[in-house]
Amino acid sequence: MPVKVTIFGAGSVVFSLALVKDMCLTEGLKGSKVCFMDINEESLDVVHRLAVRYAEDLGSDLTFERTLNREESLQDADFVINTATVSHNEYFMKRRRELAAEYGYFYGATGMPEYHNLQLMLDVAKDMEKICPDAWMLLAGNPVFAGTTLMTRETGVKVCGLCHGHYGYQGVARAIGLDPERVTWQAPGLNHNIWLTHFYYEGKDAYPVLDAWIKDKSEAFWEEREKAGKEISAQLSRSAILQYKMYGLMPIGDTPRRGGWWFHTDLETRKRWYGGAGGGDTPEGRDRILKGKEKKFQQMKSAAYDEKVRPVDLFGNKRSHEQHISIIDGLVNDNEGQFQVNVPNHGALPGIPDDVAVEVPAIVNMKGIQPVRVPPLPKKVLLECIYPEWLGMERTLEALLSGDMSMMLFGVLESHQTRSYEQAQEMLDALLHIEPNEPMAHIEDINDHYTWPKNW
Amino acid sequence: MPVKVTIFGAGSVVFSLALVKDMCLTEGLKGSKVCFMDINEESLDVVHRLAVRYAEDLGSDLTFERTLNREESLQDADFVINTATVSHNEYFMKRRRELAAEYGYFYGATGMPEYHNLQLMLDVAKDMEKICPDAWMLLAGNPVFAGTTLMTRETGVKVCGLCHGHYGYQGVARAIGLDPERVTWQAPGLNHNIWLTHFYYEGKDAYPVLDAWIKDKSEAFWEEREKAGKEISAQLSRSAILQYKMYGLMPIGDTPRRGGWWFHTDLETRKRWYGGAGGGDTPEGRDRILKGKEKKFQQMKSAAYDEKVRPVDLFGNKRSHEQHISIIDGLVNDNEGQFQVNVPNHGALPGIPDDVAVEVPAIVNMKGIQPVRVPPLPKKVLLECIYPEWLGMERTLEALLSGDMSMMLFGVLESHQTRSYEQAQEMLDALLHIEPNEPMAHIEDINDHYTWPKNW
Repeated sequence: MPVKVTIFGAGSVVFSLALVKDMCLTEGLKGSKVCFMDINEESLDVVHRLAVRYAEDLGSDLTFERTLNREESLQDADFVINTATVSHNEYFMKRRRELAAEYGYFYGATGMPEYHNLQLMLDVAKDMEKICPDAWMLLAGNPVFAGTTLMTRETGVKVCGLCHGHYGYQGVARAIGLDPERVTWQAPGLNHNIWLTHFYYEGKDAYPVLDAWIKDKSEAFWEEREKAGKEISAQLSRSAILQYKMYGLMPIGDTPRRGGWWFHTDLETRKRWYGGAGGGDTPEGRDRILKGKEKKFQQMKSAAYDEKVRPVDLFGNKRSHEQHISIIDGLVNDNEGQFQVNVPNHGALPGIPDDVAVEVPAIVNMKGIQPVRVPPLPKKVLLECIYPEWLGMERTLEALLSGDMSMMLFGVLESHQTRSYEQAQEMLDALLHIEPNEPMAHIEDINDHYTWPKNW
Repeated sequence: MPVKVTIFGAGSVVFSLALVKDMCLTEGLKGSKVCFMDINEESLDVVHRLAVRYAEDLGSDLTFERTLNREESLQDADFVINTATVSHNEYFMKRRRELAAEYGYFYGATGMPEYHNLQLMLDVAKDMEKICPDAWMLLAGNPVFAGTTLMTRETGVKVCGLCHGHYGYQGVARAIGLDPERVTWQAPGLNHNIWLTHFYYEGKDAYPVLDAWIKDKSEAFWEEREKAGKEISAQLSRSAILQYKMYGLMPIGDTPRRGGWWFHTDLETRKRWYGGAGGGDTPEGRDRILKGKEKKFQQMKSAAYDEKVRPVDLFGNKRSHEQHISIIDGLVNDNEGQFQVNVPNHGALPGIPDDVAVEVPAIVNMKGIQPVRVPPLPKKVLLECIYPEWLGMERTLEALLSGDMSMMLFGVLESHQTRSYEQAQEMLDALLHIEPNEPMAHIEDINDHYTWPKNW
């Protein structure tokens, strides 16, 4: 059945093209329309050109629109794939990290509650309520956990948050010599906070294989990679293994990238726990990623305007690992599948309130996105990992919805890197007055949104 | 109606004598028996002698027993007033603070979850289940919040936690020129975490009077006291007023003594927020308190053995402010009263689980201790003050019940004063191997109780 899919924040070229590719390769979505929306005209043009020509390459009959106008993009949309962010712009993040470093915070760990991206998500969801109230929003931009919770609480829009962190189980399997294709797994939790509760290989518990690898091979694995100057993925880092030892379940995907504050206090500590140069979450590591992204965009841009380059040669003709289009196919054409989704809990993950977005497996077909009720996580994982994050998310949403500036200050005070009340005040003030980036113009000014309590 | 009241940890002489006094002055408890239990024979003898002679002074017909044996003390008890603690022994606390200072922690803020006192409480409650299953335990020893929750979850014993922190509203009233007798108030929450939700003076909202005092008089009040070298009570400190500004409700009693980590990082910071020499919660402040207690005990001891001194001259003949005996009178003789109690929530304080002990007002009469359902606390107070403490308490209980050593380590890592993983490891190890004090011999060794997860 043909549908209209709006890709909001379409300027993420590689991601958008992966979605186009998946649509081209989905029989049941023939004749669909894709609308690209972004506020950056240059990348919008690049993605539009590549998409049109890629569809030609595959002989697909999709049609493509593009617009700079949010409301226009939402007209008649059946699905809105939302990747738009205000502050996850790499240059803005870099600037913010540098600013934080001036006040004594390593790698931007200031604790300031999220505002920009959540405000944008809420604005978009409210627009959807008016313009396309029956459309699904598939949320791809961060923060997925707080954003999915916020939009489903504050609007009637159907939201499903998606991430690819759960594929981390494959990295674990490969490292310990198991074929990921033959692994049966489950890793529920909150987005970026998921735990491998089930891990079977050809019908047998695979945790003993992991334990043997840790005991006999992990040290050699880390040393060898370090000698060879190779990076170690966070999924297989010393940090991940310590977290596994603490909780008895392997942390998956972005989970081991995070963990306790003590893994992230400075570069030396990062090197020790994540190996090599300290992984991607360091100023230098992120610069490398930023350069890679910039290079990639320049390649895309030349390809878009070079008639001799065919997009199929760049992107291939195999489906991506993104779940979005398969979920659309399931919902629209009853082409059933199992996915890892973020949706309001309503009992799927025991011990978490109903209106909090959890990351769980789901069956998707014409009946909808139907979460599988999973067994409870161990109490220790709830108390030390899940509930603290739930609480932080609730504080972030309450700060946003109440506009209470003292809750922003509390967030900075909560950062484990904050050493004094004055430091927190100064850091907050600097963050509130950071020079704006382009996307900020599209949401309310943070300084207008937040006010101090009376009598402050 | 005559009852048997067991005072467990009776060696807290001043507190025990206050209870005896209240019993002597309660008509309905004529003919009752008081059993003093302690492991310290010297203070047990002092309290017993003083009690016998005090009852003579007032012509009361109470009878007194004393014992070093826990089980014996519980035989036929109708009420057990439990003040016993293992680690709140002042000398042990001092030693522990000194040890913590060696590892870089100011005033013992190591984050190690409570073990000793909770284990003792649980042991006593289990004994009560066997020996006097219908008796009430009135819990006076800390931690009241975790202890009341633990004992009511793990045993069938009726427990009511009591504290006097809520009288802090009187200090606020007096400071701003109001007669506490004419104040109508309410301050629910968790023990040591209570908030003045209602504050009326002669039928009018008294918060504007407090606001005017803060605006016009607080600075002069602090400066004048500091010039005169007088201590400022935590209830009226700069810290209390900042907390009030953050939350819109005045923190009461032990609440402003605590607040965020940033009030307690070092002596200079304490001086700034609590005035004078930094208040009681500093090494020097606590030493003063310790000396005062020691002096008081010596006075008690001489009085006990000096036939010329009559206890009534020391203790007077007015009822104390402790709630314990009035609560017993309410339960036994239907002499109804309103009290501030800590009991499992079951809906009294909205937003808190049923099986968590909350501090709320209660009507006490023959029907029992009946909590008043109070309005919800502001969301911000829940998210920034109440829920974090609830979570910490749950972690403490889970650590205790599971005996998982890595949860002890997590607690130390959670201290805002911890700077690195290694520091936490070393601090924990030192705390586990601190030289034992006498009461420790009466509970399981912490090093036997806790074990590391397998594969650690």
